[in-house]
Amino acid sequence: MYPRLIFLENISRRVGSLLHPLTKPHSFSISQLSLSSKPLTTFSLLRHFTPESPLMDSAEISLRKALADKQAAVDAQANTVRELKGSAAADKAAINAAVEGLKGLKLEKAAIEEELQEIVKSNGGESKEAFRQGVINTLERKLFYVPSFKIYGGVAGLYDYGPPGCAVKQNVLAFWRQHFVMQENMLEVDCPCVTPEVVLKASGHVDKFTDLMVKDEKTGTCYRADHLIKDFCKEKLEKDLSLSAEKVAELKHVLAMLDDFSSEEMGSKIKEYGITAPDTKNPLSDPYPFNLMFQTSIGPSGVSPGFMRPETAQGIFVNFKDLYYYNGNKLPFAAAQIGQAFRNEISPRQGLLRVREFTLAEIEHFVDPQDKSHRKFPEVANLEFLMFPRELQVSGQSAKKMVLGEAVSKGTINNETLGYFIGRVYIFLTSLGIDKERLRFRQHLANEMAHYAADCWDAEIECSYGWIECVGIADRSAYDLRAHMDKSGVALVAHEKYAEPKEVEKIIITPVKKELGLAFKGNQKMVVEALEAMDEKEAMEMKANLESKGEVEFNVCTLGKNVTITNKMVTIKKEKKKEHQRVFTPSVIEPSFGIGRIIYCLYEHSFYTRQSKGGDEQLNVFRFPPLVAPIKCTVFPLVQNQQYEEVAAQIVKSLAAAGISHKIDTTGTSIGKRYARTDELGVPFAITVDSENSVTVRERDSKQQIRVNVNEVSSVIKEVTDGQSTWADVQWRYPSHSSASADE
Amino acid sequence: MYPRLIFLENISRRVGSLLHPLTKPHSFSISQLSLSSKPLTTFSLLRHFTPESPLMDSAEISLRKALADKQAAVDAQANTVRELKGSAAADKAAINAAVEGLKGLKLEKAAIEEELQEIVKSNGGESKEAFRQGVINTLERKLFYVPSFKIYGGVAGLYDYGPPGCAVKQNVLAFWRQHFVMQENMLEVDCPCVTPEVVLKASGHVDKFTDLMVKDEKTGTCYRADHLIKDFCKEKLEKDLSLSAEKVAELKHVLAMLDDFSSEEMGSKIKEYGITAPDTKNPLSDPYPFNLMFQTSIGPSGVSPGFMRPETAQGIFVNFKDLYYYNGNKLPFAAAQIGQAFRNEISPRQGLLRVREFTLAEIEHFVDPQDKSHRKFPEVANLEFLMFPRELQVSGQSAKKMVLGEAVSKGTINNETLGYFIGRVYIFLTSLGIDKERLRFRQHLANEMAHYAADCWDAEIECSYGWIECVGIADRSAYDLRAHMDKSGVALVAHEKYAEPKEVEKIIITPVKKELGLAFKGNQKMVVEALEAMDEKEAMEMKANLESKGEVEFNVCTLGKNVTITNKMVTIKKEKKKEHQRVFTPSVIEPSFGIGRIIYCLYEHSFYTRQSKGGDEQLNVFRFPPLVAPIKCTVFPLVQNQQYEEVAAQIVKSLAAAGISHKIDTTGTSIGKRYARTDELGVPFAITVDSENSVTVRERDSKQQIRVNVNEVSSVIKEVTDGQSTWADVQWRYPSHSSASADE
Repeated sequence: MYPRLIFLENISRRVGSLLHPLTKPHSFSISQLSLSSKPLTTFSLLRHFTPESPLMDSAEISLRKALADKQAAVDAQANTVRELKGSAAADKAAINAAVEGLKGLKLEKAAIEEELQEIVKSNGGESKEAFRQGVINTLERKLFYVPSFKIYGGVAGLYDYGPPGCAVKQNVLAFWRQHFVMQENMLEVDCPCVTPEVVLKASGHVDKFTDLMVKDEKTGTCYRADHLIKDFCKEKLEKDLSLSAEKVAELKHVLAMLDDFSSEEMGSKIKEYGITAPDTKNPLSDPYPFNLMFQTSIGPSGVSPGFMRPETAQGIFVNFKDLYYYNGNKLPFAAAQIGQAFRNEISPRQGLLRVREFTLAEIEHFVDPQDKSHRKFPEVANLEFLMFPRELQVSGQSAKKMVLGEAVSKGTINNETLGYFIGRVYIFLTSLGIDKERLRFRQHLANEMAHYAADCWDAEIECSYGWIECVGIADRSAYDLRAHMDKSGVALVAHEKYAEPKEVEKIIITPVKKELGLAFKGNQKMVVEALEAMDEKEAMEMKANLESKGEVEFNVCTLGKNVTITNKMVTIKKEKKKEHQRVFTPSVIEPSFGIGRIIYCLYEHSFYTRQSKGGDEQLNVFRFPPLVAPIKCTVFPLVQNQQYEEVAAQIVKSLAAAGISHKIDTTGTSIGKRYARTDELGVPFAITVDSENSVTVRERDSKQQIRVNVNEVSSVIKEVTDGQSTWADVQWRYPSHSSASADE
Repeated sequence: MYPRLIFLENISRRVGSLLHPLTKPHSFSISQLSLSSKPLTTFSLLRHFTPESPLMDSAEISLRKALADKQAAVDAQANTVRELKGSAAADKAAINAAVEGLKGLKLEKAAIEEELQEIVKSNGGESKEAFRQGVINTLERKLFYVPSFKIYGGVAGLYDYGPPGCAVKQNVLAFWRQHFVMQENMLEVDCPCVTPEVVLKASGHVDKFTDLMVKDEKTGTCYRADHLIKDFCKEKLEKDLSLSAEKVAELKHVLAMLDDFSSEEMGSKIKEYGITAPDTKNPLSDPYPFNLMFQTSIGPSGVSPGFMRPETAQGIFVNFKDLYYYNGNKLPFAAAQIGQAFRNEISPRQGLLRVREFTLAEIEHFVDPQDKSHRKFPEVANLEFLMFPRELQVSGQSAKKMVLGEAVSKGTINNETLGYFIGRVYIFLTSLGIDKERLRFRQHLANEMAHYAADCWDAEIECSYGWIECVGIADRSAYDLRAHMDKSGVALVAHEKYAEPKEVEKIIITPVKKELGLAFKGNQKMVVEALEAMDEKEAMEMKANLESKGEVEFNVCTLGKNVTITNKMVTIKKEKKKEHQRVFTPSVIEPSFGIGRIIYCLYEHSFYTRQSKGGDEQLNVFRFPPLVAPIKCTVFPLVQNQQYEEVAAQIVKSLAAAGISHKIDTTGTSIGKRYARTDELGVPFAITVDSENSVTVRERDSKQQIRVNVNEVSSVIKEVTDGQSTWADVQWRYPSHSSASADE
């Protein structure tokens, strides 16, 4: 149903896979598409080529076959014609018949080509592109957004929100604060964008937040390696209808695997396909990693490197200790932050979906790893919506409607807290106007998640670019706090006091670093971590084996291989201790919202066109709910006269006093035209001043109208815009109005 | 009344002065204290040493004299004692008497020293520092703010807002949007922080946004040159009581003139005083300018320099054309932007007042330069508040209460639009809780303003650091739009259609660039601009002179000198033309708000202490108005029992539904202690659940209490927090409660 190639673009670009045979261990490439790009370890794209989205659909396969057969028939017939013409024996009638036959075959071939072209095009998403262009044209014309610094030619990946776009963003953020921060009593913080290197070194961004890049060897122009290969494959597939089914399959396979390719693999594909720099046709360098953070220098000395933060989450983690104290040293609690984040994309595409600066809203919910229940889970347990758990993905099925409570109780969703946030995100997005049917929660596959993560789900919204990851909801266990604790030496832990002291038996695993260093050199750290991470059962098994055999094979998952551990390398023992409290690193559950992406998807879901009354024009409408609408209400004096304008001014004043955003249009333009302008901005209600005592209120989508007294109108608008009443409620209370004006 | 040295720090650091004899023309140094640091040209600090704040007060002068006299007397008496002791002839009684006399003199000297020390200290602001420390301790302990990245040792000039600080900031910004954007129908935009070089080249920041810096010649550590000189002078003044009155005057003069010093002057003072690097005592480099913008690189090529914006205004100017169109091609209109701005301070001091990243809220009101009236001016004309026009500053008087309407009609304030914004800013700041008596509007002196500016006023708020510039309100004429028009080549103009075509006579001034280039080389541009900027009268005079004498002396204010213009260098003529419309560059009036500074001053103005009931403790209170308070209401079950906790939960639910931020405290702590905790956060209302049907509501400052029914309480809190009613209103409606608990 959706253009596959575009779908790929959206979910891919994460990290090198340990599972896929083509990639090497440790070839990381964390994507900015991952809203919370922290080191992950395992990922495979194979799942996207389950039966749900085969590499090539059967219609295309049979058409490509038919085309090849027909071409063969055309060639054979052309030969026949040539032979007949060359032979002195042939008569005119025979030649004519053969020529007619050739013509017929050519016509048949053309018909197949046309049909194939249609399929290829629709796979490439041309109709979606036309729809998107309609939305974008309206958005740019109405200043929802414009390219930044346009008078200087603009900068790729930077956009300004104009007045309506800015208002929509403010409304989305205000609702986010109300829905999450206020309702859940979260601790909101506001940290700087400028971040010293040490913080992002601890988080892994300095070393691993990269994309692969190639350079034009003569001009130095840079390109993203995967983009060039993708463009090559896509163009070949769309334009070269004579490709064999095998070649088509190969190119599609490359497209599918691209984001899993190592630097070397990308380099060899570029060579194999003879890909050159698009602008100059010059040869390209080998691919190499480019760090996606904007770098700068803090202070004047030049010795304190800093970066513009690539996410807001680190600001919360480094403040954990103070926030835990502020919360009375109690778990669970959540901290939240809204702010700008920055990613220095190599070559941004996809408009508002992939930008160099964007607003994130992130929550870090800290919880006892031994108790991930959630007090308020029952409030969301009955919600039913599209979920796409890994079982369905792996077995090639589609996303399915499931009841949230069941998904948690069956273990599909790892725990109540994660489930609670999934439910809250669902309510949040659909309240904004995201279409329920084009919203799904997709679980990460086991090999797609970081080794430390307990479970991850993405809220994906479908738009013309495919399914877009807009919110990531991850149970990241204790990873982030531990990373900062290791680097800073500050204890980022929680305490649980026992009612009375407990005698506990503890496994003490002591890796002998000297021996391990000698044996494993640069891999020592990975081996040490793996040893320390063993649970009681594993450790006791190893102890037994070491005692009986002196050595043991041990799988180090971060190395992707087994190593041999000898009894010199580690001591394992059990100790009894009296403990007064449990000290532990909290787990963190992180819902992370890409505000710009949500807003863009909302624009697409809200946009529709309808015919003007005369039928001669297509009028654009955004069906924003009042919560989101950039302007809640317009005021139109029906004709230009003093009385009406005074009434309008009075209404405007009371709207302003009530805090309702509004716009007055006193131009003499026809009411129909004024309605059309206001519909394009998604204004839900219009007040037409057509008498001195009462006015007409028109609802945008139904175009229905009611008559309301001048003195009451602002409170009616307040009611329907702040959610106390619906349009149906007030329609029932006030007389309807059936002048033709609304439809003009 | 205020520590002069600190006062200096706040208003200084702007630009080199053309008027002051010590400074050279064109020694620019635009300060980050100027919220809208765009090129200015002339400035002198002499005004701060008008009689209002003499270099040294008379008490200090006479004490320093008395101390010197007494020292002389001590020395003389000591000599006498020595002589007597050395002489064989002296008798014991005489020696004893002389020693007693010496003791007496020493005591008298000590008394004078003590008195002088007091004065020096109070000039240095020690009592203010103690007050400030009290505020800051409470703010940091309650997480209003904390140094960013504290677990890694922090980064100077970067701060995090914790939960209450973040809420205060959100409240201030929400009110700003309501008060300015909504009430004035402004066009709000949201532009990126990452800005390409060309934009900041046009605005002047790339070339002129600098501070003077020196380096430790051995370690490379950087210091702000003026800071080192200032520290040297201050320490000398405070610690060396034996300084002569002349030396004291000299040091105070240096402090006063410091910000006007050129690079060379600072360098020579550093040498003269033998100032070395504070940490190492190594010699220092000569001072040189350091650009205060954080630099980065956009995209991977390394050839597109970018900066983190130092202000938000440029994002509005570059969008002028689209915004004008969006406004129906009509003037006046205002655009607004709230966002982060960045200044890479050399060595930040003064806590939240001078930071490397901060939130600005800026308005650019575009207006026809020929009509700066404001439709809504009458709404603010009757306001009366402290103004400090340049006449008062120059004549050594203090700020005075004036009526806004009169200030505009008398021409003290240049025009109605500027006056309107001054009035609106006054209402804004006092609504937040800024003390009227510690808020003044100070006009820039003529030589302090840029040559293009029509008039500038700063809203200055007094706090422990002195008078702090928190809002700048400037009529910047057409400067910014012209700068971007010149650089981009895009017409940033407005049109006024004439009802019928007009015949106009126009002065056409055509500088002959070739001749001017030959004559003035690098100064050519300044001369060309000065020629083009002549008004009709000046131009016709020059024309006449050139025709009669062939050459003329011409003052180029941006060069600070006269140049000789010959008749080859410019042609001037009058032409008659029919014009259908007037095309002009709008003037811009720019109110620019430093949100962090306003909030910090608000903290100081809101803070007070009062004794606990037992009298054994000083309790901290922030008297935030409900509009600003981070949390509107706390809920306390009087004792820990199930019934009360259920009632509390019910109240909390209805507060959340009403969108009222709240906090519940179910600890068993005494009500008095819980009140004290909540007072420290500035929570205006506390609900104590002490029965199942009705509860006690307590107001923070008066500690008065009323009894309200459980079902009504959240709507009562809503009334008093969203401004519909005052505490006095509801107090009148509900029975008062006089249990001792409020005072506990």
